Amino acid sequence: MENEFKREHALVVLSGGQDSTTCLYWALARFGEVQCISFDYGQRHRIELQCAERIAARAGVPQVLIPMNTLAALGGNSLTDSSIAVGAEAEPETGLPNSFVPGRNLLFLTAAAAFAWQRGIHHLVTGVAQTDYSGYPDCREETIAALQSALRLGMETEVTIHTPLMHLSKKETVLLARDEGALEAMADTHTCYNGVRPPCGECPACILRARGFAEAGIADPLVAS
Amino acid sequence: MENEFKREHALVVLSGGQDSTTCLYWALARFGEVQCISFDYGQRHRIELQCAERIAARAGVPQVLIPMNTLAALGGNSLTDSSIAVGAEAEPETGLPNSFVPGRNLLFLTAAAAFAWQRGIHHLVTGVAQTDYSGYPDCREETIAALQSALRLGMETEVTIHTPLMHLSKKETVLLARDEGALEAMADTHTCYNGVRPPCGECPACILRARGFAEAGIADPLVAS
Repeated sequence: MENEFKREHALVVLSGGQDSTTCLYWALARFGEVQCISFDYGQRHRIELQCAERIAARAGVPQVLIPMNTLAALGGNSLTDSSIAVGAEAEPETGLPNSFVPGRNLLFLTAAAAFAWQRGIHHLVTGVAQTDYSGYPDCREETIAALQSALRLGMETEVTIHTPLMHLSKKETVLLARDEGALEAMADTHTCYNGVRPPCGECPACILRARGFAEAGIADPLVAS
Repeated sequence: MENEFKREHALVVLSGGQDSTTCLYWALARFGEVQCISFDYGQRHRIELQCAERIAARAGVPQVLIPMNTLAALGGNSLTDSSIAVGAEAEPETGLPNSFVPGRNLLFLTAAAAFAWQRGIHHLVTGVAQTDYSGYPDCREETIAALQSALRLGMETEVTIHTPLMHLSKKETVLLARDEGALEAMADTHTCYNGVRPPCGECPACILRARGFAEAGIADPLVAS
């Protein structure tokens, strides 16, 4: 397994968060060549993009930042619209949290696949996970499988979407980060919904992250720093 | 059939071309409510967007223009990069024409589905066709079917992608336009690769269009005007 992809080139979708950073180190251990793609979609917390840049630089891999002004134009969600407070609970109308940007991961992965296609890269790596599936249907395994089919057919390419965290709990993701040598880089990641650094420690994202590290019995380098 | 969707709402992806305009009229005849979505992706021929606006206004339907700066940032294709001449022939390296933006229709349809999701619209209509399949794998029926699966799973919605032109020749598309009352609107459409109006009549797109009208035995209102 470890040597399976040594001649292959992978493109990691890097958001600047804990999960995609773990995926970057997972890819570094498996692929001969690795690069990162990040999306500037008008996220309310610009700090995410700074984190992504720092993480790629620390890992010594090239990173490209691709703009996507479509999500903000579609509007109506708390991730890009600062007039809407981030809610952790599902909205009664849709059954989904108001941070749900419909199809966000589909758009990111399709654009990443286009970038990869142009460079002859056949492996995409993304940190989506259905274990901590918090109402985001575009993170589920069957969605990613269907998208992979659409990308293969639509681009006539043998692209594979790797989702190393798909079935891991937050605790297991922290343990994977340790095993892949990604722990130090965690100091550069961003998770907090309130966009502050050091993290607020009180929002749902901070609490979920803290629980994962606690259950793994590992100190979070971001909080320790 | 004609009354099947009278209580339903459709979103037509309108480029300003002959095919999507035909689809708009096809939808008007079948759905209780119709609106259009167009994408400003930095197309070299801005006239397309003016055409789309005029076509929606003529049909009396609302139109939204959504920006997508991602395609131009991905770069390297003749549709957005004016430094690259449009080639009709397949590139030796990829087997695809250099106007191929990998995944372009996947991105448009995914963004359209997101827009539709937010408004409770369950029907998308697009003018892609595999009959005149000119090297664009993202126009094929099996690609659209796979994308529909990904969208349904990824957005938890029962969205249907309608492709009324999928199996029609250019001649049959012209006949459909006539049957749906779309002929007059053809005067507002744009097809020419050279972006001029009246059309150059010599580029591959103009020639294909002219052949369709000739075979249908119908005068093209754009050329006649």
